[in-house]
Amino acid sequence: MAVGQFYLSCLVLGSLGSMCILLTIYWVQYWRGGFAWDGSVLMFNWHPVLMVAGMVVIYSAASLVYRLPRSWVGPKLPWKLLHAALHLMAFILTVLGLVAVFSFHNHNKITNLYSLHSWLGIATVFLFACQWFLGFAVFLLPWASMWLRSLLKPIHVFFGASILSLAIASVISGLNEKLFFSLKNDTNKYSSLPSEAVFANSLGMLVVVFGLLVLYILLASSWKRPEPGILTDRQLLLQLRPGSWSFPMTYKPVTVRQPCEPW
Amino acid sequence: MAVGQFYLSCLVLGSLGSMCILLTIYWVQYWRGGFAWDGSVLMFNWHPVLMVAGMVVIYSAASLVYRLPRSWVGPKLPWKLLHAALHLMAFILTVLGLVAVFSFHNHNKITNLYSLHSWLGIATVFLFACQWFLGFAVFLLPWASMWLRSLLKPIHVFFGASILSLAIASVISGLNEKLFFSLKNDTNKYSSLPSEAVFANSLGMLVVVFGLLVLYILLASSWKRPEPGILTDRQLLLQLRPGSWSFPMTYKPVTVRQPCEPW
Repeated sequence: MAVGQFYLSCLVLGSLGSMCILLTIYWVQYWRGGFAWDGSVLMFNWHPVLMVAGMVVIYSAASLVYRLPRSWVGPKLPWKLLHAALHLMAFILTVLGLVAVFSFHNHNKITNLYSLHSWLGIATVFLFACQWFLGFAVFLLPWASMWLRSLLKPIHVFFGASILSLAIASVISGLNEKLFFSLKNDTNKYSSLPSEAVFANSLGMLVVVFGLLVLYILLASSWKRPEPGILTDRQLLLQLRPGSWSFPMTYKPVTVRQPCEPW
Repeated sequence: MAVGQFYLSCLVLGSLGSMCILLTIYWVQYWRGGFAWDGSVLMFNWHPVLMVAGMVVIYSAASLVYRLPRSWVGPKLPWKLLHAALHLMAFILTVLGLVAVFSFHNHNKITNLYSLHSWLGIATVFLFACQWFLGFAVFLLPWASMWLRSLLKPIHVFFGASILSLAIASVISGLNEKLFFSLKNDTNKYSSLPSEAVFANSLGMLVVVFGLLVLYILLASSWKRPEPGILTDRQLLLQLRPGSWSFPMTYKPVTVRQPCEPW
């Protein structure tokens, strides 16, 4: 059933995203000593939690706003504001995650930004900042022309998915690096796969599965807002099957926003 | 100019891909002692070269076969064979890259498949194998129905791009891990960013840039084979601008393969 499938997808994604955050917190709390905000290694521990929460889970939720069928009809401005606000929240968490690792490094006289993980991570955050400001200036503020919006939209969408992919690559390389740093003693060497290693490796793979599902929904045409006059099977099912959608939703090209409308 | 832009894109991608392979060889040859096939660390050195060549560069070339405008007209079978053959070549190089690392581990009594990098890498190769055999069985052999092909094509395309993204994440985490293993001495600690670290970090970032360009071309609609009756601006330019294409290419729906044709 179309509505059932839709809510099931939301439920699966929401559960997986929450599990990514909760399992990262559990890993840090149970095996890495918990949290503090004092420049110690316990301050570093905020870094993986805030990056997974900000750059992966809330970033994904923000990106998927336009895949909700409710966003396909009616005024677009509230959905744009939600999209921008959730991305801003993701960005703030990301910056806090960077503050955690830079403070830990500075407090302990460790060089900043030397590993490939840090190069990729900081490049990803830089791209995210550019993407947010460009999106805000072009798609949220009212002065950009329709021509400019049409030109930049595919680039905005492509970089949206790319930044998520780079964030996942950063998370994988960061987790891998942290495990090599932490699991060094003969009693719990990474290569002997102690329980922490199995747990954190599985957490990394869960982040990858979550990211792939989000990218699939972002890129699959059947999840996109219908173009005027074109409906995919899923979009048609969502709207035409009797009792399959609980709010009034009719597809008439004259009532749907046209590409030339400002909002 | 359309043709000029097209060949420029091919030239840029080809150069970047070649640079990824050549710079990996240079890194290993200049800083890591070169190559051998004897179970030593010099045998391990084949691993990064074969993975970058197989899972990233030749995999990308194989994926982009259908983005060549020449593949849009005429019989599709030769392009399918080229697509499958290049992917098979990528897969063989990948398997050799795995043989290199497993042999090195076994010869030196190092545990296999314990790091997150290895978990992600082996999962990516497993997905690649499934993708190749499914593609061969469904899209190359003649017995699959049009219904099955239409159903599986978007999944095949999505997993094609996903496997490349996962391969890049594996390359990044693998390079990062190798640099932490190798750059330990006080004279060349990774954190002091010796020239090898700058070189290999830059190589990792180059692989990321190459991968993003390939994914853009794979996913952008203007690079895709035209659907009957629909031409994007780029496709139209390639075909209609006087003197802009050197081989005879006309767009008439009746001469273009229809979705229901077997090849």
